[in-house]
This record gives sequence, C-alpha cells and structure tokens, in this order.
Amino acid sequence: MLEALKQQVLEANLELPKYGLVTFTWGNVSGIDRESGLFVIKPSGVPYEDLRAEQMVVVDLEGNVVEGDLRPSSDTPTHMVLYNSFPDIGGVVHTHSPWGTSWAQAGRALPAYGTTHADYFYEEIPVTRPMTKEEINGAYELETGNVIVERFADIDPNQVPGVLVHAHAPFVWGKDAHNAVHNAVVLEEVAKIAARMLQLNPDTAPMDQTLLDRHFLRKHGANAYYGQK
Amino acid sequence: MLEALKQQVLEANLELPKYGLVTFTWGNVSGIDRESGLFVIKPSGVPYEDLRAEQMVVVDLEGNVVEGDLRPSSDTPTHMVLYNSFPDIGGVVHTHSPWGTSWAQAGRALPAYGTTHADYFYEEIPVTRPMTKEEINGAYELETGNVIVERFADIDPNQVPGVLVHAHAPFVWGKDAHNAVHNAVVLEEVAKIAARMLQLNPDTAPMDQTLLDRHFLRKHGANAYYGQK
Amino acid sequence: MLEALKQQVLEANLELPKYGLVTFTWGNVSGIDRESGLFVIKPSGVPYEDLRAEQMVVVDLEGNVVEGDLRPSSDTPTHMVLYNSFPDIGGVVHTHSPWGTSWAQAGRALPAYGTTHADYFYEEIPVTRPMTKEEINGAYELETGNVIVERFADIDPNQVPGVLVHAHAPFVWGKDAHNAVHNAVVLEEVAKIAARMLQLNPDTAPMDQTLLDRHFLRKHGANAYYGQK
Amino acid sequence: MLEALKQQVLEANLELPKYGLVTFTWGNVSGIDRESGLFVIKPSGVPYEDLRAEQMVVVDLEGNVVEGDLRPSSDTPTHMVLYNSFPDIGGVVHTHSPWGTSWAQAGRALPAYGTTHADYFYEEIPVTRPMTKEEINGAYELETGNVIVERFADIDPNQVPGVLVHAHAPFVWGKDAHNAVHNAVVLEEVAKIAARMLQLNPDTAPMDQTLLDRHFLRKHGANAYYGQK
Repeated sequence: MLEALKQQVLEANLELPKYGLVTFTWGNVSGIDRESGLFVIKPSGVPYEDLRAEQMVVVDLEGNVVEGDLRPSSDTPTHMVLYNSFPDIGGVVHTHSPWGTSWAQAGRALPAYGTTHADYFYEEIPVTRPMTKEEINGAYELETGNVIVERFADIDPNQVPGVLVHAHAPFVWGKDAHNAVHNAVVLEEVAKIAARMLQLNPDTAPMDQTLLDRHFLRKHGANAYYGQK
Repeated sequence: MLEALKQQVLEANLELPKYGLVTFTWGNVSGIDRESGLFVIKPSGVPYEDLRAEQMVVVDLEGNVVEGDLRPSSDTPTHMVLYNSFPDIGGVVHTHSPWGTSWAQAGRALPAYGTTHADYFYEEIPVTRPMTKEEINGAYELETGNVIVERFADIDPNQVPGVLVHAHAPFVWGKDAHNAVHNAVVLEEVAKIAARMLQLNPDTAPMDQTLLDRHFLRKHGANAYYGQK
Repeated sequence: MLEALKQQVLEANLELPKYGLVTFTWGNVSGIDRESGLFVIKPSGVPYEDLRAEQMVVVDLEGNVVEGDLRPSSDTPTHMVLYNSFPDIGGVVHTHSPWGTSWAQAGRALPAYGTTHADYFYEEIPVTRPMTKEEINGAYELETGNVIVERFADIDPNQVPGVLVHAHAPFVWGKDAHNAVHNAVVLEEVAKIAARMLQLNPDTAPMDQTLLDRHFLRKHGANAYYGQK
Repeated sequence: MLEALKQQVLEANLELPKYGLVTFTWGNVSGIDRESGLFVIKPSGVPYEDLRAEQMVVVDLEGNVVEGDLRPSSDTPTHMVLYNSFPDIGGVVHTHSPWGTSWAQAGRALPAYGTTHADYFYEEIPVTRPMTKEEINGAYELETGNVIVERFADIDPNQVPGVLVHAHAPFVWGKDAHNAVHNAVVLEEVAKIAARMLQLNPDTAPMDQTLLDRHFLRKHGANAYYGQK
C-alpha cells in the first residue's frame, strides 16, 4: 500500500545526509496521504545507506502501525500530533542539524534577520517552552508534539514551517516530505547565517516588516512571482 | 542568438554550487554583450543540475525579454540597473553566500583588513542603506539596483566589484560572468576571514593604505606584475 | 592470531578519516579480545591510506607486543590502562578531533546541554586535571591513562564513554572498536553544537535532569526503546 | 634539469587544494636543491588543475630565473630570502589558508595551547612587525622575507617552521617541499583549534612547558619515539 508515498518518503530521508543535516541515524522524515489518513515514516535506527522503500512503516493518525515489519521512528508520536493539528501539512522532518540544534539548546527563538529567512518563514522561528517533569516522564514524544502545537496557538504553521524544540532540536514541515526537507535545509542555513551575524553585530534588530512581507509574498500566495508558473 | 554568451553564462552559473556559494536556486549570474546591449541571465527558480544553455533568457537594457521560453531571474531588474550604471562591467552575480550574507544582515561594511582583500577590492566593500517602504513596495528589484548605484556615487565599481545589500546579501560584478563569480568567491572568503579575525581581535584597524595600494596594483592596472602577461 | 579483531580494528581506524576526525595520522583505535586479554592497535605513524589488517599490532595488558612487525601507536600505554581499569569496554579511540580538542585545550568540561548529548553521555564529559611535571617526564602515556582513571573515580565509564585530556585531546571508548569511534563522532558533534550555542547564550544552564534521564534511558539499558530489538 | 625536484614541487603544490589550503591560485610551494643552490617554484597565476612539472621555474639564490618559460611566483623573492637565511630548510610554502590568515590579520601570534601545536612547533608561531612604507614601496616581496628573518633573530626556524606575516598570511617551511606543506596543514589546524578555544575560554594560558617539551621531543630530535624508525 502507498507505494508511491513510501518511495517519496525514502527519497526525502536520503536527502538528509545529502544536505548534511544528519549524523548517523539522527533524523527522520514522514509523509502523509490525507485521503486515507495514513502516514509513512522511517523505521527506527536503520542507517540511511541501508534504507529501502519497503521498510517504510505505515501508521494511522492514532499512532497504530498499519503496515511494516520494523518499528517506526521513536519520534512517530510527534509526527502524528503535527499531522493531526496542522491539517494543511503533508510532510514532517526531524533532525539534529547542528546550527538549528545550537539555537534550540540556547533556548532562543530565531528572528527574521534577512531576506533568506523571509523567503521561507514569515516571522521568527519560535522555540518551545521547557517540558514539565510530567510531560517528559509521560508519553514523551507525544507531549513533544503537544508543546509544539501549544507554541503555534497564535502562529500559522503554513507561514512558519518549523520550530526549535527547547534543549532538543528542530522539527520542520511542508506541503510534502520533500518540501519539509527543503524547509529543514533553509532553517539550518538561516540559523548559521544569523549565529555568525550576531558575532558581527550582537545588537542587530529583526528585519524591516515591509521587506519581510515583500520577500515572503514574492514566493508564497496568490501574488507570488518567483520561479516558473 | 548569443549562443557563446549563453554557454558562458550557463557555466558561470554552474560555478556557484561548485564553489559552495549557493543552496538550492539562491543565486543567479548574468553576462552582457555590450555591442548589442543585450544580457543573458539564468531563468528563475530552475535547479542548477537541470540548467541548459538554451534555457538562458536574453533581456535588453530596458528589461524586456528578447528571447527565451522561461521567465528570467526575479532579480533581473537589479542586474539591468547595474549594467546601465556601470558601463565597464560585463557580468553580474547575486548569491546568498553565507558569510557575505551574515555581513549584509549585520548592516556592516567589510573593511580591507589584509592582502587577500587588497588583491581584489581597493577599499572596503560597502553596505547599502536600508530601503524605504516606498522602494520596497514599488519596483523592488529595480530599486535594489538603484540603492547600490547610489552607494557607489563616490566609489569606482571597477575597483570595488561588489556590495552588501542591507538585510539581504551580496551583489558582485566583473569584466564578464566568470570574473563576476570569481569576485563573489573572493568576497565570501574575505568575509569569512574577517569575521573570524574580529573574534580574535575586535579592535583590529583596517590595513595600512600603502600595503593596500601595493597589493591591488600588483594585480590590477598598467603596472600589474602578477600572473603571466 | 585474532584476524577478525585485526580486521575490525583496521576498519574502525579507517572510519576516523571518513568522519573527519583526523588530520594525517593523528588518531588511533584499538579493540580488545577479553578472553585472551590481548588488544589490537594501529601501528605508529602509518598513514591511513596505507594501513592493512596484517600491520595491526597485538599487545597484552602489561604492554608487551605479542605480535607485529611494526611499533604500536605511541599512545598504547594509555589504551592499556583504560582496558585494565574499565573492564566492560571493548574499544578505545584517541583523536585530535578539532572541536573536542578546543574544549580540551580550554580545560573546560562539556556539560550536557541537550538531547544529542543525552542520547550517548549520561552526564558532562569531564576534563582531566593538568598532569604534574613528574607524570609528564615519567611514563607519560601510561600516566595519561592514570589521570583519566583518576577522573572517573566517581563516574561510570559505561555511561560516560569519553574524556577530554587537559591541553591535549579526547579519549573515547565503547563496547568495541566501532562503537568507540561512534562515540568519538558524537563527542565531536556535541562539542561543536555546544561551542556555538555558548556564543548564542553564554549563560545556558545544563539541561534538565529528567530530560537527560529520558533520552539516555531511551537508548540504553533494560527499558531502551530506540532502534530495532 | 632537476626533474625529480620539479616533480616533487609539482606534487607539493597539488597538495594545497587537496588539503583545502588554497582558493584559486592563492598559494605556492618551492623546493631547493642545496647542492646546486637552485630552487624550483610554481609559475605565477597558473591554476592548479593545469600545472605540469615542466612548467616549474628554476631560480638561483640571487633570484635569477635559470630555467623556465613562465614567470615564477610573484612571491619568489620571499622564498629566496628564507632559503638564504635558514640554511637547513628544503621547502617553503605560502598560502592564504583562512584560519592562519585570520590570525595574521589580527596581528596576533599563535601561542602553543596544546599538544597538537607542540607536536610540530616548539613555541608560539610568531607574527612579523608591520612593514614600513619604504619596505612596501621598495622590493616588497624581498622585504617580506627580511621581516620574517628579522623576527627569527632569536627563534630557531627548525623548531618553529612557520610565521604569520602581519596583515597578510602564513609562510611555512620544512625539510623539503612536502614537509613544508605538511607543516602548513598543521598551522591551519592549530590556528582553527586555538581560535575556537579562545571563544570557550578567552583567558586560557599557553600550555605547560614540560608538556610542550615532551610532545615536541617525542616527534623530533635524537630521542624521538613516534612513528617507525
């Protein structure tokens, strides 16, 4: 079942080492078929070089494994919460990409400082609150999803397709698995550029809102004029 | 038309990923044929690995597409302004190369700190002023060219072949498309070296003017003695 | 003798340049056969590209070369002390991996700041005390092992599989030679992430203990649920 | 003439891009035949990918080109001064390797902070004084050699095989061309490790002299015991 989606999710997972976002198996990508309400995710702890499409695990939106011989990523409940709460997204990626992880560990949201950020994220990339002892000792990966969703109460996840989980690392999403990885690459790049920029000028203010609007809307929405129609 | 130039512009575009200056499609190179007053530029949003010479778009100096099935880079009006205002340049490149972008976002001009800089840029690499709300909401990419030209009112663009656009990224030029990319690589390298140097010694003064003269003039102008004649 | 172990130790040594942990010959990996009490180690100063399994040197736990035409790594006595003092470890690796070496030279222990660290190291990665003049002028490499063991008087080496040797570089271990290299890659990665994080937020406190417990125990011990059983 | 030396110098030049020490043509290596008093050096401005052994230029110790169709590196007089003043060296390399160049531009000598440094450089890597207007406007490249030699009045160039030229970049030497490149790689690596270390602990003191002695003498001199005899 969902053979085309499995293939796409496999390829999206393989983009993680290609773009330098992962060391060993520290990352996972999923993609959802909204019609059936099933998502496909990487199996847990399998090295990227050994991954095959038929090993992808099919999971429903209550977290039940519907198909697959291997155990799904341990982060599966986080993916599930995001699919349930953000109805327009089609893919989710989690990595410990190093620049994004440095920001997440610093507990610092990543403001929009320049047009690279503005081309993809319509405001700062937020950081979640620290999780409580109960959340950590409870259904930890599910609660990780919940604190992300809580942080997005007043943020449109279609305009800000990623988050920094406090003391942990980024979760990023997109319209499908490939687009989620694309946004994860962008997050890592703007995290790098901003960190170095703060060394040059620690007092830099976030960018002008008019410029932010212009760049985001040049690439997104009804009046976009970047790329080929 | 302009087949040789299209091939040269294609190759110059492909140098961007080779030298690590671009992620995805975040960059574009153009080259001009001064005789016909036409320039050739990368189409918008096409991945580098798929680019072919026949996809290059031919544009005149009023911004009209003269030949090409694809839309030209969204930054085409900026290139056009630079060709109109800097009559000796033959190629233009725009990237979000990460070190240069960090300086641009910091809003900080890049002083000449050492001989690596002096070999290519005869003074500091300037940063443009922030654009006004009207400029951003108007013909944004054209106005981007205008603020660059405004910044060069008292600077010779042949001796300082690049600029940091505030809160955005570098634009760089040269005698042709390849030379523009060459200068973009240099800008990124000196931006990196200078940023790290400021960590080691935040109070470093710009380099001695006599040394700057010596290095720039060793490679440029009538008395150059670097390389093979 | 110990042909399979020699092959494994060879392959583990070759992982060092693959993961960017070494320049030239600045690193060595060993693996032990606990039954015979013999360990196999890289010969001293041989470039990685020339290494062959039959060049590996077999050493006993008193430091005598039991087999091999080449001299073992000059760090062999340090490996020996670690095998003698940490009975559960099966592999040892020493590199001058640059981020870990920066921390070691700074004389600063590497606290657990995030889940990447917590997945592999159950508390901070400690730094040894400076060695005395007598230790340095005496059996230096053996004394290097002794100051490591001294530092682990109250630390479980199975839960903290690595150390920063003061003004020197990391030593890392694991259940076998491959696992030791795996942990050395992790140490380098968390050293990088933490160093950059401290630039973003110099006052970051170590991570929450409950979160540290959750991540370490998710991958280690009786209740681990990461990966495939 | 000197065909074997030309081949060796070619190969040593090609190691510069291999080890990431150069961008474009920003580097040059030479090697000397002490018997004939002639040295072989890279031609000026020729890209590494096009270099061939027969293009190497033969120069005598007064700076005269003895053989070669191409002009020698513009830095040839600096190499010449070093060969004349440091009688035991057999190879010289100049690069703008980025970490070393950051230190040179910062005008800051690179202290011995750890064993990686101590394995190759027996004390700090010094920085030259700024050159005078007269030196810069005179025989600049020759005077560059002279300020290096002046700086080594009380330093043994066999124990400290490199220098940071103020506001410029490193010059490094060794017993032959390959060894000079080897030392240039080390300088870049220790410059990187030390720069990052100073971010972690800006007050780090240089390393203990006893430890410095131990590591340098373990690899150099009559009692060396590293590597295979």
